[in-house]
Amino acid sequence: MVSLTGRLRALLMAVGLAQASLPALAETPAKVVATVASPAGNLAVRVELDGEGRPAYAVTRRGAEVIAPSRLGFLFTDAPKMERGFTLAGQSSRTVDETWEQPWGEWRTIANHFNELRVRLKEKAGAARELDVVFRVYDDGVGFRYEFPDQPQLKTARIADELTEFAVVRTGEAWWTPAGEWDSYEYIYNHTPLAELGQAHTPLTIRTDDGTHIALHEAALVDYAGMWVRRVDGQRLKATLSPSPIGARVVRQAPFTTPWRTMIFADSAGGLYQSHLELNLNEPNALGDVSWVKPEKFVGVWWEMHLGSASWATGRKHGATTANVRKHIDFAAANGIGGVLVEGWNVGWDGQWFGNGNDFDFRKPTPDLDWAGMAAYARSKGVNLIGHHETGGSVSHYESQLDAALDYAQGLGIPAIKTGYVTDDGDIERVEPDGTRLREWHDGQWMSRHYLRVVTEAAKRHIAIDSHEPIKDTGLRRTYPNWVAREGARGMEYNAWGDPKNPPNHEATLAFTRMLSGPFDFTPGVVSLTGKDNSRIPSTLAKQLALYVVLYSPVQMLADLPENYAKYSDALAFIKAVPVDWSDTRVLNGEVGQYATFARKDRHGEDWYLGSVGDDQPRTMTVTLDFLDAGRDYTARIYRDGPNADWHTDGHPMTVETRTVHQGDTLTLPLARGGGAAVQLVAGKGH
Amino acid sequence: MVSLTGRLRALLMAVGLAQASLPALAETPAKVVATVASPAGNLAVRVELDGEGRPAYAVTRRGAEVIAPSRLGFLFTDAPKMERGFTLAGQSSRTVDETWEQPWGEWRTIANHFNELRVRLKEKAGAARELDVVFRVYDDGVGFRYEFPDQPQLKTARIADELTEFAVVRTGEAWWTPAGEWDSYEYIYNHTPLAELGQAHTPLTIRTDDGTHIALHEAALVDYAGMWVRRVDGQRLKATLSPSPIGARVVRQAPFTTPWRTMIFADSAGGLYQSHLELNLNEPNALGDVSWVKPEKFVGVWWEMHLGSASWATGRKHGATTANVRKHIDFAAANGIGGVLVEGWNVGWDGQWFGNGNDFDFRKPTPDLDWAGMAAYARSKGVNLIGHHETGGSVSHYESQLDAALDYAQGLGIPAIKTGYVTDDGDIERVEPDGTRLREWHDGQWMSRHYLRVVTEAAKRHIAIDSHEPIKDTGLRRTYPNWVAREGARGMEYNAWGDPKNPPNHEATLAFTRMLSGPFDFTPGVVSLTGKDNSRIPSTLAKQLALYVVLYSPVQMLADLPENYAKYSDALAFIKAVPVDWSDTRVLNGEVGQYATFARKDRHGEDWYLGSVGDDQPRTMTVTLDFLDAGRDYTARIYRDGPNADWHTDGHPMTVETRTVHQGDTLTLPLARGGGAAVQLVAGKGH
Repeated sequence: MVSLTGRLRALLMAVGLAQASLPALAETPAKVVATVASPAGNLAVRVELDGEGRPAYAVTRRGAEVIAPSRLGFLFTDAPKMERGFTLAGQSSRTVDETWEQPWGEWRTIANHFNELRVRLKEKAGAARELDVVFRVYDDGVGFRYEFPDQPQLKTARIADELTEFAVVRTGEAWWTPAGEWDSYEYIYNHTPLAELGQAHTPLTIRTDDGTHIALHEAALVDYAGMWVRRVDGQRLKATLSPSPIGARVVRQAPFTTPWRTMIFADSAGGLYQSHLELNLNEPNALGDVSWVKPEKFVGVWWEMHLGSASWATGRKHGATTANVRKHIDFAAANGIGGVLVEGWNVGWDGQWFGNGNDFDFRKPTPDLDWAGMAAYARSKGVNLIGHHETGGSVSHYESQLDAALDYAQGLGIPAIKTGYVTDDGDIERVEPDGTRLREWHDGQWMSRHYLRVVTEAAKRHIAIDSHEPIKDTGLRRTYPNWVAREGARGMEYNAWGDPKNPPNHEATLAFTRMLSGPFDFTPGVVSLTGKDNSRIPSTLAKQLALYVVLYSPVQMLADLPENYAKYSDALAFIKAVPVDWSDTRVLNGEVGQYATFARKDRHGEDWYLGSVGDDQPRTMTVTLDFLDAGRDYTARIYRDGPNADWHTDGHPMTVETRTVHQGDTLTLPLARGGGAAVQLVAGKGH
Repeated sequence: MVSLTGRLRALLMAVGLAQASLPALAETPAKVVATVASPAGNLAVRVELDGEGRPAYAVTRRGAEVIAPSRLGFLFTDAPKMERGFTLAGQSSRTVDETWEQPWGEWRTIANHFNELRVRLKEKAGAARELDVVFRVYDDGVGFRYEFPDQPQLKTARIADELTEFAVVRTGEAWWTPAGEWDSYEYIYNHTPLAELGQAHTPLTIRTDDGTHIALHEAALVDYAGMWVRRVDGQRLKATLSPSPIGARVVRQAPFTTPWRTMIFADSAGGLYQSHLELNLNEPNALGDVSWVKPEKFVGVWWEMHLGSASWATGRKHGATTANVRKHIDFAAANGIGGVLVEGWNVGWDGQWFGNGNDFDFRKPTPDLDWAGMAAYARSKGVNLIGHHETGGSVSHYESQLDAALDYAQGLGIPAIKTGYVTDDGDIERVEPDGTRLREWHDGQWMSRHYLRVVTEAAKRHIAIDSHEPIKDTGLRRTYPNWVAREGARGMEYNAWGDPKNPPNHEATLAFTRMLSGPFDFTPGVVSLTGKDNSRIPSTLAKQLALYVVLYSPVQMLADLPENYAKYSDALAFIKAVPVDWSDTRVLNGEVGQYATFARKDRHGEDWYLGSVGDDQPRTMTVTLDFLDAGRDYTARIYRDGPNADWHTDGHPMTVETRTVHQGDTLTLPLARGGGAAVQLVAGKGH
């Protein structure tokens, strides 16, 4: 930028324009035009305009700059870019301090306390366009978004790219997955120096060399393209938007707002998780009464397909037969499990469906499945079926059936649907009204609309949505609480057939990366610890239990085959007991990619649950139970790795012990290689 | 990719498709389907297909892999991507061994000796599209391109992006400028570990940790978007195409070919420069007799604008007045300089023209300039005027005048035009026939067509083109020899007003980065060593002379004010003598960003010239004159840094000495800080 500045300045001065049309162009340093601090004052944002009228923001934390002056602005496909030549046309500020309640979640109540600064920028020349930038500064993070006012000179914004920067001041390390390659979030996380960051998805987790943890992400991604970030030089990161086949990556009519660009700052990995910035920056519940959205555990006709012993396609190996679905319903009912997912229930799986889902029909069960009968049978047992809508990436084909497909599910009393978008890179099929076939990315603007359309149409029918191969989570569950979970990272399925499988530290990485965005339908609980071809899963049995606490979702699968749970009754006891809805959550310790210990309190009771996961080395977790009620007895049922547990040899040894504990007691939990620990803390009477 | 492979494999096997539609899908390693070695056998390319039918190429050098298996393929905006599911439908090979002659250049004759491999890939399913990949393997490099055959299932290719990879095997360092930021090549070069490469322009110069030098670039960029490369992980680089406002970055009708993707491999920086790969991969001269293209030196009404003492705009400071142009013509004629560049000669400079050149008229001189009269006056003195077409980025406006503007120049006998495209990022104005205004990048497909259109239209009128703010050079001067030079990096102008100026090692970096692409109108010869506001230029006087040899162009400016040359008559003597057209070139030594010594032989005589440039530390260059004719006397006139020369204090001290030298003699050239040396070797009689 220095060079551009120099060049323009010189050229303009040479041609005698400096004084005429750009009076601020003299060699003045950037001028601070507005500032805002967080309620407690530890975070502050300043907005500057430099000599060319280029706006930038910077962030200080406890008085030290953490984000250096970082560019703001847009390129358009059909208009001059909006990035310099601005003057400050106005500013305003306000404070909000409120709490609100989640219908389900990790915390029952959420405090929302921020100071807001709105700056209105106006171009000094040319079309004199206006652009607002709104900053909300919390004690643990900053969100800002652009607002395009209604203005005759910019009715339709055709955004070629966004110029937003995040200039991290200190060197550090980063945990990230690549963006713009395979169109997916399903990568093993890279852990590199920040200076080796490529083009990355968010949430992007950074730890700078002074121990500060930073998470970059976005909130309320609605009718806009997903933001990727790319390192430009040093630790200066730049936003770039997910591609579009139509030129502009975003087309919107003014007035409109962009998603929030978010930065959480914390002294620890756990501090990032404890922030409510993402949820707070989303709009309140737009659906009214959502008591029909039920957190639940579920089993599924699913893992056997990943093992290769059953198939989605019809024929000899077809998994979704009446008999097999009935077996799963019976298992669920017998164990108090609320749902049964059935994949391969509908026609369309018999061809080459991935990336080509035009044969799918979401109203036609396969001939060997009495789908309506099973829905009724499930209801009679107090269980519900979970439908599955795999699109194979043929999204327009799916949309053409969407209303009817949802009506059909509603008619059968199916209250939740898992969707799927398995396809190749940038190869989502969009068919235009004139028949033109376009290829979209999972996180482009068109798909951001699609995912939300499915959710809102489903909401009308009281159906919850669990999106696989989704657009990333940006906290929209606050506004649309029937969007209960997403995939959006490597789940358990990679432990069935992955080459490689998820590494032993995968979950300790997820806890402070992917999980910052929202619920993950990871599908834990493979108690057999066995994947395809008898391959060993990089986990101990105790760790499988811990995952129910560490990796939050309001819908949690018992991913293994029903017959395997019979073999591990201790494990099943914990899984049956562990809630899926919480009133409180504490991160007791954690280092990204090394270990993570979470405690959560049952939303519907006084019990706490604790989960701890490690990596590929033995560890000892020492946790202090200071979150328990003072003076109350708790019966701690501890599921920990047995003396010889080691995922490399045998992850099954698990020691289960029971003791009475109190507030302030210390628990020492040994974690094996690939290990974990789970603790149920049953509240007794108070004193 | 591993993860995708695993996922698809498992899913496909699970749904029973593996054996049916994708027989090669079993867990087989990639299979080598074709190989080709260079004529001497030191470089070899192999083409593989992996279990999913994904094609890749790899390169070995002296038996060791230098480029690991690297992906090939395309994303489209309106069709499934083309990247896997391929089978080998055929292959053929041939050898070419020829020499050809440049009409002007660094070398008179160019050897073109390669082995070619053509593989035809065909999709096994779906549309069964075909794609050829053609490899040309030289002893010093590899070029490959894609060829889209004429096929009913792919008439129009709308390319969303190219998936080509360059997976560098070894770690190393890289010299690069960022792509996708400020839409310009005018950056100070980054020198970083290869693992810290961002998104970069080409030529991209890499030195791996075993000393191998690699240059990645492209050749024959015609009707296609420029290729940027981005590091994906490790040392794996990926092509991405310059953006477009219309969705597809490239739209072409089949049959068509892409530009060549090129890799030069050498043991030294100089080895990269000595490769003729780029030129060889361009098509032969398409213009027939080009004797009208005359290499020449030129002066200009130019530096004074950059100093701020004159202006492009009319008024008191206007530079392009009749009197000032006449002064320059007289200076040129008196010193045997062929051309006089005049900037600011036409109307349109009086408003805010940068990024908004719609006021420019290329047929209307300013009222204070007798342009036609000066053209005639110049001719009478044996000098020619060089016109200037600054577009301010309003390219459609320029195109609407192009034919008339070139006719006008031709009518005045103006044989060369410097074009200009000063504008903001991604902000080139393209106006569609329906009036829609779109914003283009300098190196997008639309601009690639524009630059070449200017060149071919100029050629019809026997006008040479020197493009500033150009699309990067990819060797098209071979096909269009009237495209004599380009800018495309930071030139001398930054030493007038840059903040910062070009660093002292800039030219030693350029020599092995930018200069690998072709002639650079750097505009050397600022003998005053003084920029705007009496600022000091990071160079000695001797280095200014060296630049005429080191930084090749068939058009070389005497960039300084005429009056300054009178003060430095020794320097002027060298500048007057140094040719601009060569029959041979040798890189005598060089390390990227440290030093570079070039020897070139006059195309029209037996004399050699030598130039050496350093960086910000004193150096001693020892060069052996083994390129001279055996047994011949040469009078060496040596222009070297004087004992107290140092750009930080005074770069002017220069020692000029004359000695007689012979083949095999050693010259010791001391380089000051920011220094250089130039040597004229006048051939005497042979023995």
